[in-house]
Amino acid sequence: MAEKAHQNNLQFKPHMKTHQSAEVGQWLREEGVREITVSSVSMARYFAHHGWNDITIAFPANIREIADINVLADQITLTLLVNNKTTAQFLNKHLDSRVKAFVEIDTGAGRTGVKVTDSGAILALVQKIKESKWLQWEGFYSHPGHSYNARSEQDILAVHEDVLKQIQELRKKLESAVGPFTVCIGDTPCCSAGTNFEGIDAISPGNFIFYDLMQCRIGSCEVKEIATAMACPVVDIYPSRGEVTVMGGAVHFSKEMLQEPDRTYYGLPAEFSQEGWQISDGGSYVKALSQEHGVLSCTDNYLNKLSVGDVVHILPVHSCLTANLMGEYTLLQGQKVSQF
Amino acid sequence: MAEKAHQNNLQFKPHMKTHQSAEVGQWLREEGVREITVSSVSMARYFAHHGWNDITIAFPANIREIADINVLADQITLTLLVNNKTTAQFLNKHLDSRVKAFVEIDTGAGRTGVKVTDSGAILALVQKIKESKWLQWEGFYSHPGHSYNARSEQDILAVHEDVLKQIQELRKKLESAVGPFTVCIGDTPCCSAGTNFEGIDAISPGNFIFYDLMQCRIGSCEVKEIATAMACPVVDIYPSRGEVTVMGGAVHFSKEMLQEPDRTYYGLPAEFSQEGWQISDGGSYVKALSQEHGVLSCTDNYLNKLSVGDVVHILPVHSCLTANLMGEYTLLQGQKVSQF
Repeated sequence: MAEKAHQNNLQFKPHMKTHQSAEVGQWLREEGVREITVSSVSMARYFAHHGWNDITIAFPANIREIADINVLADQITLTLLVNNKTTAQFLNKHLDSRVKAFVEIDTGAGRTGVKVTDSGAILALVQKIKESKWLQWEGFYSHPGHSYNARSEQDILAVHEDVLKQIQELRKKLESAVGPFTVCIGDTPCCSAGTNFEGIDAISPGNFIFYDLMQCRIGSCEVKEIATAMACPVVDIYPSRGEVTVMGGAVHFSKEMLQEPDRTYYGLPAEFSQEGWQISDGGSYVKALSQEHGVLSCTDNYLNKLSVGDVVHILPVHSCLTANLMGEYTLLQGQKVSQF
Repeated sequence: MAEKAHQNNLQFKPHMKTHQSAEVGQWLREEGVREITVSSVSMARYFAHHGWNDITIAFPANIREIADINVLADQITLTLLVNNKTTAQFLNKHLDSRVKAFVEIDTGAGRTGVKVTDSGAILALVQKIKESKWLQWEGFYSHPGHSYNARSEQDILAVHEDVLKQIQELRKKLESAVGPFTVCIGDTPCCSAGTNFEGIDAISPGNFIFYDLMQCRIGSCEVKEIATAMACPVVDIYPSRGEVTVMGGAVHFSKEMLQEPDRTYYGLPAEFSQEGWQISDGGSYVKALSQEHGVLSCTDNYLNKLSVGDVVHILPVHSCLTANLMGEYTLLQGQKVSQF
């Protein structure tokens, strides 16, 4: 991802919310990364404490955290998402250091941000920010989360090209009125599949650091590119119903699921090889999660290989949520890596 | 729940996995509770450290944790679920203190435990445990999790009566062969709705301490009995699409959802009154969660009452998973309550 950013003259501001780890951040630093993205003020504080001094909080600024925002803004170069006039006014009144501001634009995900087509509202908000003593307007941020509806690389590319087109139109409409600006986009599918980044200045994907089964289904990656798995001890085996119970439930994986016509699953058992992770058995999958229990539906062939006390490695559906719950990693070589 | 246990001559061994808090445990101690249930060895260690000396780990014993089990068994009266011969053999070989053992029986949930009708397998396992030097067989544990399919108190009672019947049949078959034993059941729906506990010696519900929207739908409780809500700051308001974004996502709530014919929701906004929590607005609900974002679909009436910077209180679908993610509570009076 760092190489792709470099080749396309993009600033690379990776999102740390997937791994949440200062040590994994260090690996990114070794790739030349100097600016990062996080999802909360407390996560920004953690990474600032670990030596990062240019941090974007890619979540609509929460004005109730003004005291903590002020402490951080005094220490580092902080960028906030300022998505509405209430927030802009509040920050201008209560900030006591300068912070940079992105306006988030909604390029189709329908979650947060001003609709990209609503150039009147965008212009009014940008002008409000530009008038502010403490906010320095940088440009626009967008998370094209509708790329998660893709089911192939082609689907992702269709979203990506559409997002680029919308951003180019926004540039045409606004640049004469407000001068040049920066655009940062942040979703792993578009950043993984995209090769054209015309009109984009920066990227901030996060999930790519581990990928997961959802990204496989979207078309962002292959199974062998997934870089995290949960080690789950086998605690019970039920040959008559073809099921195995493991320690590995919703408090370990969270409850993200993938629905296919013939099954819904919360993870897939896998084996590590020199080429990366490989699915253990196409017919075996995590069929249910309760608080601590995971129930694997298994083929006879797979079930017969397992004994109580074995460890099954399970690829997560959503690595961000799984990593958030675990709080620590064990590398393949055995070292522990800590987390926020 | 303590009163109900007392009135029915039941041992009350509440499950601590919902609140995971020594301070909430203290409230239970004030109700006379002396024996508790937890879901992991590490949670048992936390409560042992906080003065509890009779703890059941209601999860199939994970033999890979034998070292930690031995440390605990030396300190407290520990009860494990021993569900298969591999585990019984391993424990007998590697334990170095006596522990009590429940055999988990599957009374219809289909998750873990020996099928209650499989009295041959049950008897063989019980005999294996009784022969063991280090395991002291206590009886049977069951979590009738199929009560979660209920949609009314009547549905729950039908499950409960069926479970009682199965357990009575098991008693008839086994008591002549193995002598008297204890039966403990552990689900909040049956313990909430049930009034007859014939053949049951102990109960270990957990969720009842807070309840949640899922328990309301099952028929275990009313909304006003729910005792926890998430305080979510409003960060963005979208009148054109009737939506409000709050800080409150999958890393706060987990991703448990409830599906109704006309909507799927991850939480409901509520107001606190002297009678307890009340739903703010029947037409407004959390329609989507991403990692940190919650998106509320709102009626115009409800949306018009909200401003950026407000706090919305949201009742969780599954309080156990939500509490597990938060790590701390704030009481209505403002004090902080810490967690495992």
